[in-house]
Amino acid sequence: MTLLDTMIQLGKNARAASRAMAKASTATRNQALLLIAAAIRRDAAVLTAANQRDLAAAAASGLDAAMLDRLTLSDKSIAGMAEGLEQVAGLPDPIGEISNMKFRPSGIQVGQMRVPLGVIGIIYEARPNVTIDAAGLCIKSGNATILRGGSEAIHCNRALARLVAEGLSGAGLPADAVQVVDTTDRAAVGALITMPEYIDVIVPRGGKGLIERLMRESTVPMIKHLDGICHVYIDDKADLEKAVNIAFNAKCHRYGTCNTMETLLVASAIAPQVLPLLAVRYAGQQVELRTDAHAAAILAGYPHLTDATDADWSTEYLAPILAVKIVSGLDEAIDHINTYSSKHTDAIVTEDYSRALRFLREVDSASVMVNASTRFADGFEYGLGAEIGISNDKLHARGPVGLEGLTSLKYVVFGHGEVRQ
Amino acid sequence: MTLLDTMIQLGKNARAASRAMAKASTATRNQALLLIAAAIRRDAAVLTAANQRDLAAAAASGLDAAMLDRLTLSDKSIAGMAEGLEQVAGLPDPIGEISNMKFRPSGIQVGQMRVPLGVIGIIYEARPNVTIDAAGLCIKSGNATILRGGSEAIHCNRALARLVAEGLSGAGLPADAVQVVDTTDRAAVGALITMPEYIDVIVPRGGKGLIERLMRESTVPMIKHLDGICHVYIDDKADLEKAVNIAFNAKCHRYGTCNTMETLLVASAIAPQVLPLLAVRYAGQQVELRTDAHAAAILAGYPHLTDATDADWSTEYLAPILAVKIVSGLDEAIDHINTYSSKHTDAIVTEDYSRALRFLREVDSASVMVNASTRFADGFEYGLGAEIGISNDKLHARGPVGLEGLTSLKYVVFGHGEVRQ
Repeated sequence: MTLLDTMIQLGKNARAASRAMAKASTATRNQALLLIAAAIRRDAAVLTAANQRDLAAAAASGLDAAMLDRLTLSDKSIAGMAEGLEQVAGLPDPIGEISNMKFRPSGIQVGQMRVPLGVIGIIYEARPNVTIDAAGLCIKSGNATILRGGSEAIHCNRALARLVAEGLSGAGLPADAVQVVDTTDRAAVGALITMPEYIDVIVPRGGKGLIERLMRESTVPMIKHLDGICHVYIDDKADLEKAVNIAFNAKCHRYGTCNTMETLLVASAIAPQVLPLLAVRYAGQQVELRTDAHAAAILAGYPHLTDATDADWSTEYLAPILAVKIVSGLDEAIDHINTYSSKHTDAIVTEDYSRALRFLREVDSASVMVNASTRFADGFEYGLGAEIGISNDKLHARGPVGLEGLTSLKYVVFGHGEVRQ
Repeated sequence: MTLLDTMIQLGKNARAASRAMAKASTATRNQALLLIAAAIRRDAAVLTAANQRDLAAAAASGLDAAMLDRLTLSDKSIAGMAEGLEQVAGLPDPIGEISNMKFRPSGIQVGQMRVPLGVIGIIYEARPNVTIDAAGLCIKSGNATILRGGSEAIHCNRALARLVAEGLSGAGLPADAVQVVDTTDRAAVGALITMPEYIDVIVPRGGKGLIERLMRESTVPMIKHLDGICHVYIDDKADLEKAVNIAFNAKCHRYGTCNTMETLLVASAIAPQVLPLLAVRYAGQQVELRTDAHAAAILAGYPHLTDATDADWSTEYLAPILAVKIVSGLDEAIDHINTYSSKHTDAIVTEDYSRALRFLREVDSASVMVNASTRFADGFEYGLGAEIGISNDKLHARGPVGLEGLTSLKYVVFGHGEVRQ
């Protein structure tokens, strides 16, 4: 059997399983989640052993420390996977909800029903916990899924796949509702993204290089996260304390996350007041500031000061580095953001009502905030209960994607024998 | 300037115009629509003259009668374009609506704002009225658009483009908010579908061949309509009169529309009663019935009877031809539909409550109906006010696509200085 045959078989299995999932009751899907959680707790030692094999191979092949860290399953992360499934089981069921049923002049009643998307392909790095997070969200939302995790996690993912299949079967659901691609051959990804007849949507989670390749090659629609070049704009009508707290938190709360601020824009009228206050905070964290000439003049003497180049306005540092630009006011700030932002999350700090409304309306990003840290752009902080990723796309799901993002609305019509005149 | 340069320039113009459109007020966008409508009425003779040039060229090149018919602008269709714009101006504005603003434990308040998608590329056949319909829906929904109509309508589309630009400018909006691709070079389509940096979504309206090409080649997301293989299933608990009326209307109301029934499924227990009644109605319209052996036995003597082949279950006839299959009951009907349907519109006729609910839930199509003709799957019948097309996709817009389908929901956060803990 060639790799392509194998992938087509996975696709056919998933399509068949998706039909059973779509009609499974809320209780059945929740039962599967709880059975999987119990199996993970029971087999923690098995999972740890499988993870040790992955870690040994990864260390031998010279994987870097950060990747080894993400690959590692601790006792705590194993318990976390089980708890995550239990939390998802406790969320409201999005499936089957019927809304907006309205009578039309013809006599028919028309509304919409929320239904699963069908089959979801998820492509991610060597992070075993994502296998369980993704499986849990797909089961809860009535979808079948094909999971393609980083090959370094293959032993752990195989062990997890067995537990997921056990839980699905135990609840009377098809084990094929969650399939793990059991090969380290990278061509599997190429097959997965070109099977629109079997896969309804691809959710890629990974670096920019992977996503850009998928954008070129995929014939299956994607819910994708590209990068996070997030801005905070401090307006001249900002409250100084809020401005300093937000701009510090948005940069320094965590450096490696996509909702971290990468560029700070400051209105020229407030820059002489706010930048020195911020400099004190940033200096304590040794944040490098890459600034335009105007900001450099105000920040003269700051210990980690560099001249910004044009490239800095479109760089996602994921590090203690911040681009800083002085702007004349709101219009220039919005222009800069709509030009350089990755359309992820952007915030204004202001006490001016009209400017706040204009920023909310005119900044074309998935999350737009007034007087709050960009770090809040997150499925849990937004109350979605869980998150499969954050979408930079405008179609379908935008921003943090929870269970609803894995569903679709179809039209339902209640008739009484009506025919078209 | 090469064609690609020209297309890139159109893209840049559209992107710039989209920002002005996104912040334009409801009144301004409606004013543009009304000014365009008035200009169309004023220049009806100019439009007719331009259309005559197109028609003469098309007749000389041997265009078939149906295409000539669609290309023709009558006085009535010119008035219809103006009226359509006035109706769209009267619809509620979807843009700027803020919903579900909820406080979170952190203190931030999170909800969603409906905003334009940005730039919409529309590719369609030689139907001048689509130029105005599409322009109107894009202006109303705050989007910029690039229109690529069939080359046979180029003179008429140029004349319409001038009137649209006049109306936009008159309302103070950028004329580039609606641009018509002013070349008959087919390579323009290839450029349009591979400019994701300038175009946010492609809406193709055309034959299956065009759509399949775009699916292979487009790197821009699409809202697309593939085909309409629609089913009616007559359950053995159906009311006979409703069944006959619906199955007759779904086939014979109009043959060439995508929501016309192409396959009739009949439960074996009711087939001996219902098929002879239906045969009388279909015979009056000389409908050819392509049936399985079981149905053929019941319909023996019907004047236009043919044996169905496997290909009939997946053929969109758009003609007075109907595939007929006897099924054992609901399960087989749902299986058949989920296998052969184009996921457009499918209906059940039954008086059984539980079967109706199962059909609604389990049939994986954009519109699912109980006791109503599939011909109701339409933006106007559903109360959307207008329709840019009907989507067979599951992501974003599914089924008839109105103004909301041309918008996106972004998250908005009202904060009070909150930072992430």
